[in-house]
Amino acid sequence: MAKEKKVESITSMDEDFAKWYTDVVKKAELIDYSGVKGCMVIRPYGYAIWENIQKDMDRRFKETGHENVYMPLLIPESLLNKEKNHVEGFAPEVAWVTIGGSEKLSERLAIRPTSEVLFCEHYAKVINSYRDLPKLYNQWCSVMRWEKTTRPFLRSSEFLWQEGHTMHETAEDAKEETMRMLKVYEDFYKETLAIPAITGKKTEKEKFAGAISTYTIEPMMHNGVALQGGTSHYFGNGFAKAFGIQFTDRDNKLQNPHQTSWGVSTRMIGAIIMVHGDDNGLVLPPKIAPIQVVIVPIAAHKGGVLEKAHEIEAALKAKGIRVKVDESDNSPGWKFAEYEMKGVPVRLEIGPKDIEKEQCVLVRRDNREKVFTPLADLESTVESTLEAVHDGLYQKALDNLKEKTHTALTYEQFLEISENKGGFIKAMWCGDSACEDKIKDETGGVKSRCIPFEEEILADTCVCCGKPAKHMVYWGKQY
Amino acid sequence: MAKEKKVESITSMDEDFAKWYTDVVKKAELIDYSGVKGCMVIRPYGYAIWENIQKDMDRRFKETGHENVYMPLLIPESLLNKEKNHVEGFAPEVAWVTIGGSEKLSERLAIRPTSEVLFCEHYAKVINSYRDLPKLYNQWCSVMRWEKTTRPFLRSSEFLWQEGHTMHETAEDAKEETMRMLKVYEDFYKETLAIPAITGKKTEKEKFAGAISTYTIEPMMHNGVALQGGTSHYFGNGFAKAFGIQFTDRDNKLQNPHQTSWGVSTRMIGAIIMVHGDDNGLVLPPKIAPIQVVIVPIAAHKGGVLEKAHEIEAALKAKGIRVKVDESDNSPGWKFAEYEMKGVPVRLEIGPKDIEKEQCVLVRRDNREKVFTPLADLESTVESTLEAVHDGLYQKALDNLKEKTHTALTYEQFLEISENKGGFIKAMWCGDSACEDKIKDETGGVKSRCIPFEEEILADTCVCCGKPAKHMVYWGKQY
Repeated sequence: MAKEKKVESITSMDEDFAKWYTDVVKKAELIDYSGVKGCMVIRPYGYAIWENIQKDMDRRFKETGHENVYMPLLIPESLLNKEKNHVEGFAPEVAWVTIGGSEKLSERLAIRPTSEVLFCEHYAKVINSYRDLPKLYNQWCSVMRWEKTTRPFLRSSEFLWQEGHTMHETAEDAKEETMRMLKVYEDFYKETLAIPAITGKKTEKEKFAGAISTYTIEPMMHNGVALQGGTSHYFGNGFAKAFGIQFTDRDNKLQNPHQTSWGVSTRMIGAIIMVHGDDNGLVLPPKIAPIQVVIVPIAAHKGGVLEKAHEIEAALKAKGIRVKVDESDNSPGWKFAEYEMKGVPVRLEIGPKDIEKEQCVLVRRDNREKVFTPLADLESTVESTLEAVHDGLYQKALDNLKEKTHTALTYEQFLEISENKGGFIKAMWCGDSACEDKIKDETGGVKSRCIPFEEEILADTCVCCGKPAKHMVYWGKQY
Repeated sequence: MAKEKKVESITSMDEDFAKWYTDVVKKAELIDYSGVKGCMVIRPYGYAIWENIQKDMDRRFKETGHENVYMPLLIPESLLNKEKNHVEGFAPEVAWVTIGGSEKLSERLAIRPTSEVLFCEHYAKVINSYRDLPKLYNQWCSVMRWEKTTRPFLRSSEFLWQEGHTMHETAEDAKEETMRMLKVYEDFYKETLAIPAITGKKTEKEKFAGAISTYTIEPMMHNGVALQGGTSHYFGNGFAKAFGIQFTDRDNKLQNPHQTSWGVSTRMIGAIIMVHGDDNGLVLPPKIAPIQVVIVPIAAHKGGVLEKAHEIEAALKAKGIRVKVDESDNSPGWKFAEYEMKGVPVRLEIGPKDIEKEQCVLVRRDNREKVFTPLADLESTVESTLEAVHDGLYQKALDNLKEKTHTALTYEQFLEISENKGGFIKAMWCGDSACEDKIKDETGGVKSRCIPFEEEILADTCVCCGKPAKHMVYWGKQY
């Protein structure tokens, strides 16, 4: 028998969550580091997850009337400078091209950190009449933000994302779009990634550079820390004015259109890892798992085992299930560990005795439940098991979110929760960013996550300064 | 009735092919120019064509065992310099990042012009044993080559492409892969784009920087000029040696793996335009047309017309056909011209009289043939018409290729054909690049396209120098 790759164990989550995360990312073969700091290689298994995410999301975007485009990678410095708040937000983290071919460029070119200004430059040329509106464009691409400290998927200098940029006749239309796309994200997180999240509006301090308002979806990781999972911005017509985008309205008057943008990125893969993963590695939600079912033949050399494995494979494939038979000469034990590390939702084990009994062993990745299953109705059992895994993952994550969400009525409570429990803190806020600054400083990084759409009135005064409260806010540390 | 957009006519192909091309690209709304020279905006209609190309090609790659990955955008200068021939080929056209955030970088970073070195850096880490081979990776991304003169799709500083990079145990395996992928391209051009082409091996002078041999697919544009439509390279183990990629073979000895790369780009959209287009604009092969059938209601305000149009739309959609009803208030005449410009393969016109007679008018874009068609079996008529359009386009392009391919037995004939007829020239060659240089200089740019896999022996001596001939070569000007 061939020399077997050793199955190395990974750091336990409870011992060192950060190390556990990087162990999983490496051992599940999602990424490799590259020679440029903060730029990662997304390996086949990691990229296949991204492709499944893209396919599902792209369908949702097209169903809501959006079209894909491709904008240039480079932005002339003068173009980036056109909207003041925007450039101030991004300038510190831009990578600049200064030489093209062998010549020094007369103007520096930014590698896009985001593409608002490119979309605006184009929209100025193609929007003339209300008949040209709405423009509902999206692009899938990579962007670059020069980060000092980086972590795979969570914060990298280059990452993959989608950025939607839309233009509308009225402020109302644009606001509706902003909320529509936040809802698309929320549905996607729940239905496809099995991830619950809180949603709401960002405070002034936390909103996107140049936006009037930013809405956010914030799932909670297993350790209680938030990840900003996606944002949707309403811009009003500020960019449109700065870029001279005008249209003739229904009354034949010139107007500036109203704008939105919204985006999610490969960070989502970080969320999948940290919401669902466990000490045996990745746990993938079935909808985006590159392999949904792995079949492990036991005593594969014995007559009929491999044939039966491939028979089952064909039957599952016919149902549209992504399935793989591992017929390598590694031991069954090695294979069990390997596909657990890779988070494959369902494992089937089949050996000569199983075939005699017309059954196989079915093991769920999420709860490691192991059952003997008749081969007779295996396809429907597998289908319902995949659904059960999805539902189980969602419920477990929801329980975690609820368990680690606390209410603070006093500042002492707030500090105590932040110090000893972590997670999300619900607390009242006066609306002043000075309180956000104070909380952040005194808790080692707790920030306002969002003002939820349905606020509870927990108290009349701000948890920090005691002045009259304006909003209930979710607070928490973030990646 | 609303004010109608004016249908502007375009330059005729015969009058000015270059201007005709840019007219089509603009008027069919495929691209827009951006503020960075040679970087284009790919608009929704152009990008939808690219998405259809990607979907079809990606399926072919996966069916032949390839996996997608994502490599970083940036390449450190020292990494790019590792393979000497390679860097010499690309250095003159690299865009360099020299500033990240607000700091000058200690080492310049190239925006990838191609990613061989990045794949090699990664492969060095993940290839250890013959069990790790082959590695069959592909990536879809944008690349940057700082071009002096640019034209949309044909030659742009930034373009979208796919680049396959594979590693194999033996030279034979790698050579087989090189040919396999050239065949995938050839099939794709024929079956999906309805484009015939010649295929063969590039001469030493024309091969890829760093490759041992380069194979190419070269379709002919309507005006007789070639477009290098896709290339597949065999590298031997030169890069593997330079990058220290080693594996333990079946005899437990250390070896360097053998490598290939292969790519096609958004240039293909240029080929589609220039092979199939006519004086009314774009003519799209049905398989990649974003809209395969447009339905134009005539006297749409009259009872039943719009309903019938949508009924037909639903029936065609159910057959998997991409169909659109244009119910805007533009005139039918405007719509006819608009969708001809956009190259929609089939147009259906339906008015009150047609409904009475249970028929509609079906117009093919390629030959503008117009027939009354019973509504009863419209779906199957449309399906067979789309196939007929594909076949018609292919045959027309093949006729053009044949008609504009000439044989030259003497140098005088060669110059005369090149001067007066253009197209491809079949002629014998001694194997010396000095003859290629001479021909290029004296014909204003005719180059060897390729040595075909099946050479005809037209003569015993080189058409240029008269020395003994080694090969038959296809010659021609190129985009």
